[in-house]
Amino acid sequence: MNPDIILPPQVAWASGAFANGPLIRKATRVGDLTGVFSDTLAWQQRDPNDVVYHVEMLDSTADAGALYVGVTHLNAGKIGDEFYMTRGHFHKQREQGEVYFGLSGEGLLLLQTEQGEARLERVAPGSVHIIPPFTAHRLINTGTETLSSLAVWPTVAGHDYAALAGGFALRVFASDSGWEVRHG
Amino acid sequence: MNPDIILPPQVAWASGAFANGPLIRKATRVGDLTGVFSDTLAWQQRDPNDVVYHVEMLDSTADAGALYVGVTHLNAGKIGDEFYMTRGHFHKQREQGEVYFGLSGEGLLLLQTEQGEARLERVAPGSVHIIPPFTAHRLINTGTETLSSLAVWPTVAGHDYAALAGGFALRVFASDSGWEVRHG
Repeated sequence: MNPDIILPPQVAWASGAFANGPLIRKATRVGDLTGVFSDTLAWQQRDPNDVVYHVEMLDSTADAGALYVGVTHLNAGKIGDEFYMTRGHFHKQREQGEVYFGLSGEGLLLLQTEQGEARLERVAPGSVHIIPPFTAHRLINTGTETLSSLAVWPTVAGHDYAALAGGFALRVFASDSGWEVRHG
Repeated sequence: MNPDIILPPQVAWASGAFANGPLIRKATRVGDLTGVFSDTLAWQQRDPNDVVYHVEMLDSTADAGALYVGVTHLNAGKIGDEFYMTRGHFHKQREQGEVYFGLSGEGLLLLQTEQGEARLERVAPGSVHIIPPFTAHRLINTGTETLSSLAVWPTVAGHDYAALAGGFALRVFASDSGWEVRHG
């Protein structure tokens, strides 16, 4: 007789939707993102309850050495001319890396070292982003649909949002040609 | 003027094929798998050059805290009545976890603790397997096509194949009803 076979959680590659998993869900709204967007007046005029992004992650062991799996769904939109983006962070344990995979939508992954050097990687379905140690990361939705990205990260990594509260070195705005990058 | 946008590696979810990445590729053949399959005579009669599985991984920094990304392509086949499987291993750093995602094909992920407790998870397209710390893991292809599975694991994890050289606690064989599990 066969033993019980475990049916694990599932992810739909086309949407990032999880099934069959113990999920934790957190929404981040306009009102949560104080100081993130450059156009403060445009930010103040928006409904603070508008959701900018939400994260769904599988609730799993947080033991040292374990890995988390989650999906960020970053809505399409702008504050002023600046595209919706995640808050972005260094890991509290700076040496811990992360991997992002693009699932749906189009956007950019903004990476920045502790020395302030920034670079942009194109996020698209199937893109693989190996975020090295000591590197802050932020998603930016330059498209017209939700940007969904799967992430795997060490449970011990933690988040440090304060180090870049003053902003990353680059910002991305809508322009006549689609989008343009400006120095923050 | 926009700065250069980096085009990262890509993975095709339907096949596990990588593009645009610095790849490392390693094949494991029948002749490499001494002592892995229960039917030694059947194993000896096979061409030792037949590939059982191959792994493609993105060549990236091995610094502590970094993560690797790779895909295992486990061919369909049997040695005697026992399905093709990977060698399986504990991590050398036992506390390091790993995440597997099923991409194509059908199979099982065999997990085993240091106390010898084994369990099986069903691997199918979109399945998510969070392998906790201190847990050995082996893929088994119970289907008729290649089983491809994406993995993310810490660069510091390493491999310890010796600890389970005598075999896992469970084995999976073809049977009239498809497959059956036997105690090793």
